[in-house]
Amino acid sequence: MSVTFAKGFSAAGVAAGISSIEGKKDLALVVNQGPLDSAAGVFTFNRFCAAPVQWSRKTVADGHIKAVILNSGGANACTGQAGYEQSAATAKKVAELVGTQPDEIAVCSTGLIGELLPLDHVLSGVESAYAALSDDDQAGSDASHAIMTTDTKPKTVSLEGDGYRIGGMVKGSGMIAPQLATMLCVITTDAAVGAGQLQAALNAAVDHSFNRIDVDGCMSTNDTVLLLASGASGVEPDPDEFNALVAKACASLARQIIGDGEGASHDVRITVTGATTESAALACARAVAASNLLKCAIAGNDPNWGRIVSSLGTVPVEEAPYDSQKVTVDVNGVRICENGGAGRDRSEVDMTPREVHIDIDLNAGDEQATVWTDDLTHEYVHINADYES
Amino acid sequence: MSVTFAKGFSAAGVAAGISSIEGKKDLALVVNQGPLDSAAGVFTFNRFCAAPVQWSRKTVADGHIKAVILNSGGANACTGQAGYEQSAATAKKVAELVGTQPDEIAVCSTGLIGELLPLDHVLSGVESAYAALSDDDQAGSDASHAIMTTDTKPKTVSLEGDGYRIGGMVKGSGMIAPQLATMLCVITTDAAVGAGQLQAALNAAVDHSFNRIDVDGCMSTNDTVLLLASGASGVEPDPDEFNALVAKACASLARQIIGDGEGASHDVRITVTGATTESAALACARAVAASNLLKCAIAGNDPNWGRIVSSLGTVPVEEAPYDSQKVTVDVNGVRICENGGAGRDRSEVDMTPREVHIDIDLNAGDEQATVWTDDLTHEYVHINADYES
Repeated sequence: MSVTFAKGFSAAGVAAGISSIEGKKDLALVVNQGPLDSAAGVFTFNRFCAAPVQWSRKTVADGHIKAVILNSGGANACTGQAGYEQSAATAKKVAELVGTQPDEIAVCSTGLIGELLPLDHVLSGVESAYAALSDDDQAGSDASHAIMTTDTKPKTVSLEGDGYRIGGMVKGSGMIAPQLATMLCVITTDAAVGAGQLQAALNAAVDHSFNRIDVDGCMSTNDTVLLLASGASGVEPDPDEFNALVAKACASLARQIIGDGEGASHDVRITVTGATTESAALACARAVAASNLLKCAIAGNDPNWGRIVSSLGTVPVEEAPYDSQKVTVDVNGVRICENGGAGRDRSEVDMTPREVHIDIDLNAGDEQATVWTDDLTHEYVHINADYES
Repeated sequence: MSVTFAKGFSAAGVAAGISSIEGKKDLALVVNQGPLDSAAGVFTFNRFCAAPVQWSRKTVADGHIKAVILNSGGANACTGQAGYEQSAATAKKVAELVGTQPDEIAVCSTGLIGELLPLDHVLSGVESAYAALSDDDQAGSDASHAIMTTDTKPKTVSLEGDGYRIGGMVKGSGMIAPQLATMLCVITTDAAVGAGQLQAALNAAVDHSFNRIDVDGCMSTNDTVLLLASGASGVEPDPDEFNALVAKACASLARQIIGDGEGASHDVRITVTGATTESAALACARAVAASNLLKCAIAGNDPNWGRIVSSLGTVPVEEAPYDSQKVTVDVNGVRICENGGAGRDRSEVDMTPREVHIDIDLNAGDEQATVWTDDLTHEYVHINADYES
């Protein structure tokens, strides 16, 4: 399904010899066949943002994108002017084939930081990808495979609105933290929507999805989320429904990233309720999600509420007013912390499910927020210590 | 040596049956025999601070402490009013034996959060500890052993000033992050110094030592650093020399914590130079020290500069102005990142030493700061996932 679920989009995923893994699909192309070419983007805040981010931020700025070229096997980050020229050359090649200008092309890269791409492989790969373009399911699936790095599975979404469709793909498994919390994401729609509405829908959706997941607290140099509209359905959607669907697509993809977090054995939902403001709830949820000690405890099936409240306790009172003596914590439905102290016995908590639910009530107000994270396992260390990535 | 190196202090470390480890020394007593009883303290900022922290913060506030009682085997944190009463009862028992009031006693606890202590064991242990008090090296050593939890070795310091001495002990291995970055620390001196000067010396020293180490980004509920002066040397020290010696004692103990960080295979010094302000340098160093991905790379002997600069890039420009294109990174003396891009080949870096030096030059100013951290290993996950602590 993936990006080709929406009408007006074709895609391809090919092995271009960019990745060090022989034969791995490593180059994806997504082309918007129109009639519209509206586009919106959200990019990493990292000050060492990669060359393709610098390029795409510029080309998306006018609200129009005809095609996106994405590679795994190299991030093209911290590569200076030479790296920027590689992104530009790649865009130029795509533009020639698609029949447009380079400034209508977005470029995304993911992989090792600090090395240039094998440009000849990229450019010949672009030709192969263009030749393989198709609007069928297989093409969308191939594209979603081509952007994978340490991901163990492709991550896609397909949703139907009232007469229009939304499709999407994402890659991301490590170096995942707000903000953003993805590496590369392309969402497509055949709804007839202008760039302004797209950008507003995307900003709101990203804020509640990719910006609320945290695998390892590490912000990437290459994060890019693109939303493209072809208008091929001819339907101008109800704005509320459209915004909700884009939010749902982003939430689904973000949830899939957590489900495939590097080495993870548990997906952890942290919901903070009873906060004075949403941002207070969010600050508390983020603090808990960032605790290595808690994440290790969860890996060991230990619902260690002491590590939850000690993380909560690091949030400054001006960011989140609450009384530590009134806080309750439920893990998987068992209230193991009550009034800031011990509640029911932690042995009552069943930690065997993959999904762990931590519900914290600050008892200070009516606002809430949810953040997702993963546990911290031997396998995470193994992936990031023993392989160069 | 430890806390008994300074004249006028006696100490003991006994097995009181608080720890779940049969026969482990778990209760330490440090008594200031005077003639002075000046004291200063620095405590965790955690809002879920433990009962002994609440107690000791109050009793140290007037600048006078006669004795400190410290236990491992239980943090007495998140234990509500009952926990506070345990700290008070322990102080009362010590005060009776020492011949003073409970408000002249500091109490420190470390161990599992959320459970009350076995108070009868604590109180009978206080009697044993009082009976074992001595001012010899062995007594100081026993005390430093009694406060260990996941520490693999005791951590002590002894320094000589001009006619006076400083001794100290610390425990801490995990849940180490600014601010603070220790669990329990007692520093003693026989210099004749009042409480005001002690507190000023301690604040400055802690800010540059315990607040600049980060094992796992997790702030504890029980952090306590105490500085006690007996005046037994009769020497009123030169203030500058005294401040420098207190700073040196804290720096030594902080460095020992990093050297014994849970599961660590490398001690990592991160120095950021060329910053516009010290706080800018510190923000950058802290961001790098907090990167799980970098810490895993170092565990795998990979001087992964991409993970260094991507962490640097998360520091907002208003906190640390610098140009990403001018940043250099040396690891163990090899400039592997130059002008924000690749420098010498990372294979030139010898990562076999225990100590790893990361030197980052922002090339934006003249200020600098250093932070110490550990790598992130399988053993860290093992300690924190597979044991309840």
